Amino acid sequence: MEGWTHLDEHGHAVMVDVSGKEPTRRMAKAAGWITMSQDCYESLKNGGLPKGDALAVARVAGIMAVKKTAELIPLCHPIPLTKAGVDFFWDDPNHALEVVCTAQCTGQTGVEMEALTGATVALLTVYDMCKALDKGMVIDKVRLLEKQGGKSGTYLREDDHA
Amino acid sequence: MEGWTHLDEHGHAVMVDVSGKEPTRRMAKAAGWITMSQDCYESLKNGGLPKGDALAVARVAGIMAVKKTAELIPLCHPIPLTKAGVDFFWDDPNHALEVVCTAQCTGQTGVEMEALTGATVALLTVYDMCKALDKGMVIDKVRLLEKQGGKSGTYLREDDHA
Amino acid sequence: MEGWTHLDEHGHAVMVDVSGKEPTRRMAKAAGWITMSQDCYESLKNGGLPKGDALAVARVAGIMAVKKTAELIPLCHPIPLTKAGVDFFWDDPNHALEVVCTAQCTGQTGVEMEALTGATVALLTVYDMCKALDKGMVIDKVRLLEKQGGKSGTYLREDDHA
Amino acid sequence: MEGWTHLDEHGHAVMVDVSGKEPTRRMAKAAGWITMSQDCYESLKNGGLPKGDALAVARVAGIMAVKKTAELIPLCHPIPLTKAGVDFFWDDPNHALEVVCTAQCTGQTGVEMEALTGATVALLTVYDMCKALDKGMVIDKVRLLEKQGGKSGTYLREDDHA
Amino acid sequence: MEGWTHLDEHGHAVMVDVSGKEPTRRMAKAAGWITMSQDCYESLKNGGLPKGDALAVARVAGIMAVKKTAELIPLCHPIPLTKAGVDFFWDDPNHALEVVCTAQCTGQTGVEMEALTGATVALLTVYDMCKALDKGMVIDKVRLLEKQGGKSGTYLREDDHA
Amino acid sequence: MEGWTHLDEHGHAVMVDVSGKEPTRRMAKAAGWITMSQDCYESLKNGGLPKGDALAVARVAGIMAVKKTAELIPLCHPIPLTKAGVDFFWDDPNHALEVVCTAQCTGQTGVEMEALTGATVALLTVYDMCKALDKGMVIDKVRLLEKQGGKSGTYLREDDHA
Repeated sequence: MEGWTHLDEHGHAVMVDVSGKEPTRRMAKAAGWITMSQDCYESLKNGGLPKGDALAVARVAGIMAVKKTAELIPLCHPIPLTKAGVDFFWDDPNHALEVVCTAQCTGQTGVEMEALTGATVALLTVYDMCKALDKGMVIDKVRLLEKQGGKSGTYLREDDHA
Repeated sequence: MEGWTHLDEHGHAVMVDVSGKEPTRRMAKAAGWITMSQDCYESLKNGGLPKGDALAVARVAGIMAVKKTAELIPLCHPIPLTKAGVDFFWDDPNHALEVVCTAQCTGQTGVEMEALTGATVALLTVYDMCKALDKGMVIDKVRLLEKQGGKSGTYLREDDHA
Repeated sequence: MEGWTHLDEHGHAVMVDVSGKEPTRRMAKAAGWITMSQDCYESLKNGGLPKGDALAVARVAGIMAVKKTAELIPLCHPIPLTKAGVDFFWDDPNHALEVVCTAQCTGQTGVEMEALTGATVALLTVYDMCKALDKGMVIDKVRLLEKQGGKSGTYLREDDHA
Repeated sequence: MEGWTHLDEHGHAVMVDVSGKEPTRRMAKAAGWITMSQDCYESLKNGGLPKGDALAVARVAGIMAVKKTAELIPLCHPIPLTKAGVDFFWDDPNHALEVVCTAQCTGQTGVEMEALTGATVALLTVYDMCKALDKGMVIDKVRLLEKQGGKSGTYLREDDHA
Repeated sequence: MEGWTHLDEHGHAVMVDVSGKEPTRRMAKAAGWITMSQDCYESLKNGGLPKGDALAVARVAGIMAVKKTAELIPLCHPIPLTKAGVDFFWDDPNHALEVVCTAQCTGQTGVEMEALTGATVALLTVYDMCKALDKGMVIDKVRLLEKQGGKSGTYLREDDHA
Repeated sequence: MEGWTHLDEHGHAVMVDVSGKEPTRRMAKAAGWITMSQDCYESLKNGGLPKGDALAVARVAGIMAVKKTAELIPLCHPIPLTKAGVDFFWDDPNHALEVVCTAQCTGQTGVEMEALTGATVALLTVYDMCKALDKGMVIDKVRLLEKQGGKSGTYLREDDHA
């Protein structure tokens, strides 16, 4: 199928071949922060929002987004996920919320994008539920914390301990 | 339909009623940054990536994500979009790329979430296409730059000039 | 476009023409029950399930399913929804849970299918979260409680007072 | 990844880990009834409906919904289905129609939700195609008939012989 | 929003602004042929296929694809469709089947892509259901037959009389 | 599960059982042409289109459509794809563009439909981006060029050398 090589030679978009890779057990964990005004932070933490319990909704949105990753990121491979979850951590001094998303699969390609997509959509859902109170919220430090499995092995972000 | 009031009283999740609102012309513009290693930045800018032309792919991914917003954000209303676009700005000194996403509609609810979702998915797509070179990339400062239309009128972020 | 008439004449599937209809404000409310073992009912009501807080998840699932109705029901028209919500009612004597889903739009066709789909997917989600405890649960009495708007006007189910 | 345990400890929603499970061949069969007025039942059985051949459309809708289960039920794992089908049984005395949906996969988690979702969406599609004649139709007895495979082994509903 | 003009100036992909356009009633009709071996044609016409009644399935697939157009074609606007249908015509001498798809909306942009997408997916579905008998089938002459409404007015393909 | 046999006996639609098949490495390559006016062809080739760089957008659309095949073609099995790509070939004399789509998986069923769907959606995307210049474009000769793997082994279209 020289068509393929041809594509690569010319630097065109392609969903790269992973059929030669061994299916291994893989995990990825990603996180990000959303920072908001103190009033907004308190309403969020105390659950007094017009659209309801933000964290329960954001958690479900994040988990469902993990499953939608290959639909959103054009060159991602569809992956048979074995696990997905979203957790939250409050930071009162900075009135910020951290979202941590973990994804796992047994497959031929990693789940970094799944974890990053789940974290991001959970953060966007928090924004949506708080935006009546504060349109100035900022999503920051969306990053990969850790990955395990696959040929490139383990990655552990140094400046993190989430 | 006291069921509804009941929901609100109890702070449960609900896709809030917008049927009383006037359909008006609305616009929102959101942006975010992805920061990477200098090597990665140069490969991205010079188009030498294994998965191909990252910006063209990220632009399409962002525009398609704008249309998927109501599928991703649980309490977002489906919106008849009239326009969507994604633009990129290079920042050589900080080897960072800024993504700006603009959305428009004529409807009863705003397009802030559409613009934020488009920007975020474009940024995640850049991450996906660069991650073979740099897993340490960070997505930062995802924020609403501007909104127009609707009862709350115009919002313009002060510390921005994108 | 005799093709169309032709289709109807021959009783083939068609997404029927609603372009002649006036856009009016429409509402529909549907409900259904899920009946389970007493143990399962108590775990559900007390939130002690392996998969977590079932009702918060089922509520989000129902609201998101309302938005997916036209993707699931082949001949349903896509509808610009203005409101969607899901509510729950406990029935201790029969260890059963009732789900009520309400949908609204301003459009040319009704939202009965949206309300029924939202109620059903919320019930299925409860099943999913309880099935480790009880595979014998039964979903019953899924029905339209009420509709308002449109040429056929108001429908109110007589034997119901949800 | 204590984040996960943490989630479970606190009873938050999570798509639970199945990576330790053996991939086995699994089957599930679910069914449900829709009961309608005699006039509606006869039109349905004789194919004289405004929207066309209801059963052919409902069958396709059910099969496609089986594939959409993980998109609809938040904590369901995506599953590589190997088989899906929908069958119908008439009950003239009660002017009711039974839908039976069967799903199969070779994987780490069961297909009960797939079979239940397929049956339910097929029933909702019948409702959609008949609702011009009868808005009072009721969907009843949606239940799991049988499952095979997996650690919990075979489940056979006792009071059923579909 | 010079960002937009900027995009156009540089010939980058953009979902173009239609907010200035008047919502008008629009219709489009598209068609295409699939040509197959005589044996395959006869099995298809006589309904003796392993996967079942191909035309009923292809009709539903085409109608559902009309609703999915904006998800598939990156720069298509989401459209509130008011009507969609698929019809078939047999050509015995050439053992070919013609699919005609019609779409309607009242909106700011046309439904040509919706009609073309519906026709194409119906043709691909016929291919899928016949491919066990004939892998050499060819889809030909997929074209716009007619469009009505919008600023550019009526288009009628000259060499067609479907 | 006689229900299944029953379905087959009666020629009803069914997503056929592939659980008995060995997972093998499979490839399929499909192609098709779009023919347009000379002016349109030159604008496309020189990238002077109102909606931007058509080929980059069409390539992404085709790759994403490969992943959506099981959502579009009712009886297609969901497949864990390992590779997908789209390539283009210019034909100046006939002012036509050929799209070639290649798909690979390691699974129990083939990827012919994936390759055909990817090629077709890429062609439709080209149509969408050129239609302001030429509504008379025709999509032709959409066909399977080659398949490898599976029980039926290799298929190579004789009259092709793409």
